[in-house]
Amino acid sequence: MNFCSNCGAPVSLRIPPGDSLPRHICDRCGSIHYQNPRLVIGALAEWHERILLCRRAIEPRYGLWTLPAGFMENAETTAEAAIRETLEEACARIEIGDLFSLINVPHINQVHLVYRARLIDLDFCPGAETLEVGLFEESEIPWNELAFRSISMTLRYFYDDRRSGEYRLHVGDVILSSQP
Amino acid sequence: MNFCSNCGAPVSLRIPPGDSLPRHICDRCGSIHYQNPRLVIGALAEWHERILLCRRAIEPRYGLWTLPAGFMENAETTAEAAIRETLEEACARIEIGDLFSLINVPHINQVHLVYRARLIDLDFCPGAETLEVGLFEESEIPWNELAFRSISMTLRYFYDDRRSGEYRLHVGDVILSSQP
Repeated sequence: MNFCSNCGAPVSLRIPPGDSLPRHICDRCGSIHYQNPRLVIGALAEWHERILLCRRAIEPRYGLWTLPAGFMENAETTAEAAIRETLEEACARIEIGDLFSLINVPHINQVHLVYRARLIDLDFCPGAETLEVGLFEESEIPWNELAFRSISMTLRYFYDDRRSGEYRLHVGDVILSSQP
Repeated sequence: MNFCSNCGAPVSLRIPPGDSLPRHICDRCGSIHYQNPRLVIGALAEWHERILLCRRAIEPRYGLWTLPAGFMENAETTAEAAIRETLEEACARIEIGDLFSLINVPHINQVHLVYRARLIDLDFCPGAETLEVGLFEESEIPWNELAFRSISMTLRYFYDDRRSGEYRLHVGDVILSSQP
């Protein structure tokens, strides 16, 4: 951030009175521009014993597999975001279930949420940001070609819970590395 | 948003190619400025049968009671945010427990998370944004003087769970009204 989005003057990075962290502050109009983590929200959609994965047509991680997920938008709820992202990336309609994982990714200022969901029908296809959509049995999951650490953690939690017969919320952190 | 925070030129609000929502786009450098919901994170800290509440010394809701909570910062985890906010607002040290509530507040573009926690000692006092800190039995909760709907929902979930003897994650939405 170089300029004030309110008045267009240069900003400087300093600690406002009463605050403890440096913020971008406008030297002309005094606006303080806070920067906060973003929510990435996705769905783990089941069809009988299989789950829906998408192969990414965009960077980062072009060509790798992920759950349908993306940045939460203003004016929607977390469940609405999961439904929308699944429709956008896999053209798939889901019935949303329980929140299943919350994974902090602090080195890129993100929090990833994944909901369990039920695929309503098999009428899916790749959206604009997706190369390919598929349904996978556990033995077919491309573990070495998953796009994000939070996705592989979520899938491991899911299969562990499925074996135990009890699904619960999982909270985890991705600790600093080159892979989000 | 009126100006590009990257180059300082005016922005216009239009739908980028391949997108479905209007974004602030810089007419000079082409930067797209996304706006996304923010996370507000707090703690429901217990000391035996009592819980910690803070009376707000800032707007909005000056003078009303709330759980210690505030905007998540970049580079921290959700649990770290809950611990930090409790320290800042109530000068209180907590041992963090399970994530307890996730409340969407879409009309103000916020998602509120509350963790259960255990107060480590009774050495607390009002922080800079707090008028007063207190420990409350259920019968003492100032239900008509709570600052936010998400806080009253979370406290009702908490006492319901305490009566049932089983605590679980609660996900809810605050539907459009004048009170967040």
